[in-house]
Amino acid sequence: MVKQMPSDPLSTTFAALADPTRRAILQRLTRGETSVTELARPFDMTMPAISKHLKVLERSHLITRGREAQWRPCKLEAGPLKEVAEWVGGYRKFWEESLDRLDEYLKQLQKKEKTNARKK
Amino acid sequence: MVKQMPSDPLSTTFAALADPTRRAILQRLTRGETSVTELARPFDMTMPAISKHLKVLERSHLITRGREAQWRPCKLEAGPLKEVAEWVGGYRKFWEESLDRLDEYLKQLQKKEKTNARKK
Repeated sequence: MVKQMPSDPLSTTFAALADPTRRAILQRLTRGETSVTELARPFDMTMPAISKHLKVLERSHLITRGREAQWRPCKLEAGPLKEVAEWVGGYRKFWEESLDRLDEYLKQLQKKEKTNARKK
Repeated sequence: MVKQMPSDPLSTTFAALADPTRRAILQRLTRGETSVTELARPFDMTMPAISKHLKVLERSHLITRGREAQWRPCKLEAGPLKEVAEWVGGYRKFWEESLDRLDEYLKQLQKKEKTNARKK
């Protein structure tokens, strides 16, 4: 048995999202529940490789799987993504500030150009 | 030299965020630029351990470091967090839908209780 590193829920979510295939799977699930076979179709991957990704998403509560023995449809669970949005939302003013600084700089540049144009 | 797995920018950002110490460092930097020694203070960690975390944050463009040889202050760079916010924002309607369903269920429950109360 592989011993898992203890991890907080937000770290588990971020680790699960740090893979383009897993994000593509979530994207596919926004169109509705689907089977593993259907999910695997657009990816050039073996079924065990896809299953491994699904297990990571399931452990991080980003998907759930139906209980039917034959066809266990995967379903998107957006709860952990709300936590991500709330966490990252706390930094909004920092990226807006850098955009504001750029905006201010461009305005100053424009003003200077106008003044120079009038002088001509 | 350790060969690095090729990775897309969003995966690199998510991987960097998948650690509570690194998120705490970013949180600390919201209060302004600071030295590595200052950053290390609240953590029960060796300087090499902190340095390793800073390197991960620097490689993912979440921080930059000053060019002064002696005191290389760390600075928060929120650009990659904007990318995270935009990505996760695409899933908003999915977590709002589950909240709406819960809300609808509670309203129905309340309605039933009122009807039952009037019958008494």
